[in-house]
Amino acid sequence: MPQTDAEISAFDRATAVTRTEGGGVRADLDPGWDVGNGVLNGGYLLGVVARAALLDSPHPHPVALSASYLRATPGGPADLTVTAGPAGRTLAHSTVVLSSAAGPSLAVQVTTATLGTDRADYTVNPAPRLPGPDECVPTRTSEGGPAVGLARQLDTRLDPATAGWTAGRPSDVRLLRAWIRLADGRDPDPLALLLFADALPPTAFAVGRPGWAPTVQLQVLVRGLPAPGWSVVESRSTEVAGGWSDEECRIWDSTGRLVAQARQLARVAR
Amino acid sequence: MPQTDAEISAFDRATAVTRTEGGGVRADLDPGWDVGNGVLNGGYLLGVVARAALLDSPHPHPVALSASYLRATPGGPADLTVTAGPAGRTLAHSTVVLSSAAGPSLAVQVTTATLGTDRADYTVNPAPRLPGPDECVPTRTSEGGPAVGLARQLDTRLDPATAGWTAGRPSDVRLLRAWIRLADGRDPDPLALLLFADALPPTAFAVGRPGWAPTVQLQVLVRGLPAPGWSVVESRSTEVAGGWSDEECRIWDSTGRLVAQARQLARVAR
Repeated sequence: MPQTDAEISAFDRATAVTRTEGGGVRADLDPGWDVGNGVLNGGYLLGVVARAALLDSPHPHPVALSASYLRATPGGPADLTVTAGPAGRTLAHSTVVLSSAAGPSLAVQVTTATLGTDRADYTVNPAPRLPGPDECVPTRTSEGGPAVGLARQLDTRLDPATAGWTAGRPSDVRLLRAWIRLADGRDPDPLALLLFADALPPTAFAVGRPGWAPTVQLQVLVRGLPAPGWSVVESRSTEVAGGWSDEECRIWDSTGRLVAQARQLARVAR
Repeated sequence: MPQTDAEISAFDRATAVTRTEGGGVRADLDPGWDVGNGVLNGGYLLGVVARAALLDSPHPHPVALSASYLRATPGGPADLTVTAGPAGRTLAHSTVVLSSAAGPSLAVQVTTATLGTDRADYTVNPAPRLPGPDECVPTRTSEGGPAVGLARQLDTRLDPATAGWTAGRPSDVRLLRAWIRLADGRDPDPLALLLFADALPPTAFAVGRPGWAPTVQLQVLVRGLPAPGWSVVESRSTEVAGGWSDEECRIWDSTGRLVAQARQLARVAR
């Protein structure tokens, strides 16, 4: 029996793609996933792009997405052009270009494969320890400023150790760490990890320098299937120079296993 | 006065691209930059791709390349298809696909801009301390096995602290650190950094597990113009799970400034 709209999570509805009669792929981008000024969140857009790539892939999961953010993407109809590369027994490649009314806004290298729940053979990524979600600082209610759609779609609880800035006590370290899950309780999967990889505010917020930091390129690697429940996301900037900043992101699932890592290059105010 | 062939460095010759009469871009890939089995090095190929992107860009330097390695690329003629994205005052985007006789083998998101020599406003990337190049372990002469072209093009001196494996004493940490420069003495620039970002052996070598580790996707961020002389490159794996490994790379110039960082996802033997 098909699910009714009410049974489908907001994230799944907002990232849905459909095949057009002409063989293309179309999405109706939901303006409710914005980060201000009507601009849609980059992680949300990667979810849409991954769904387009999976339509034709023999493999079920996105494992690596590398995206160039060509220009801001608004809500509304969007066309996705999927150019399939070689597909093998282990993995498949494609290039996906997302275009809205203003033209192409996102070009992405996508690799799909089958992910598992294997424990790591080798890791130097121990899960950080932070107080339970109820002891942390919900960002949904602490934002203050103008309404940002993304903040309503996610339940994000900042580690108090990295939340000083929300109470006027900025840190000198560009580090944010939080529990994260979809607000409607939908459990994480590789698509949701693409969203989580770009869901925290810019790390400049942690040092009391809020502002716009548009993503130039973002690579997300999904390293395993996440367990149900809360995930932990950590974002840090390691180098700010010449008007550019990196943002390093790691995500652990509720069992403490690393399930995604990401790096983006962003422009910053000088 | 144009340079003679002898005055042009081997790297510049091997990465040269030319515009064809039909408006395309062509390269003659040099089989001397292989990593075994006639397969060309991924960093060398990024140098060729970046030159193709720069032909049409209003900006002089590659700052971010994100590449999908679709299949192995052999030496010989290759065509490069450059699809320009938006170009602004600060940066420009393009997608470059490199195809050889077997078909498309590399698809890359390229961002170009103007890099400088600014000191970092914020950094948690202090340059590692290692003994001078002459106190380190040259990998060119220690390889032993079959000749690998790449090893002749580069002068790489491994930090003895990460070179135990070359003398039968593997470590338990997947970390390699080395001085690096082009063998003919050509000074580094952003194009050479793309090469250096994929120039060390797989970090599995450090733990005594040599073997093939084909790159699936690689993102390189060039963070500044490198000073002349030796650079330091550090490569580490942080997570090996389910037949996948990451390789994290950082490069510092001779003044100790971080000039590039990279991350790749590779397949590994299980």
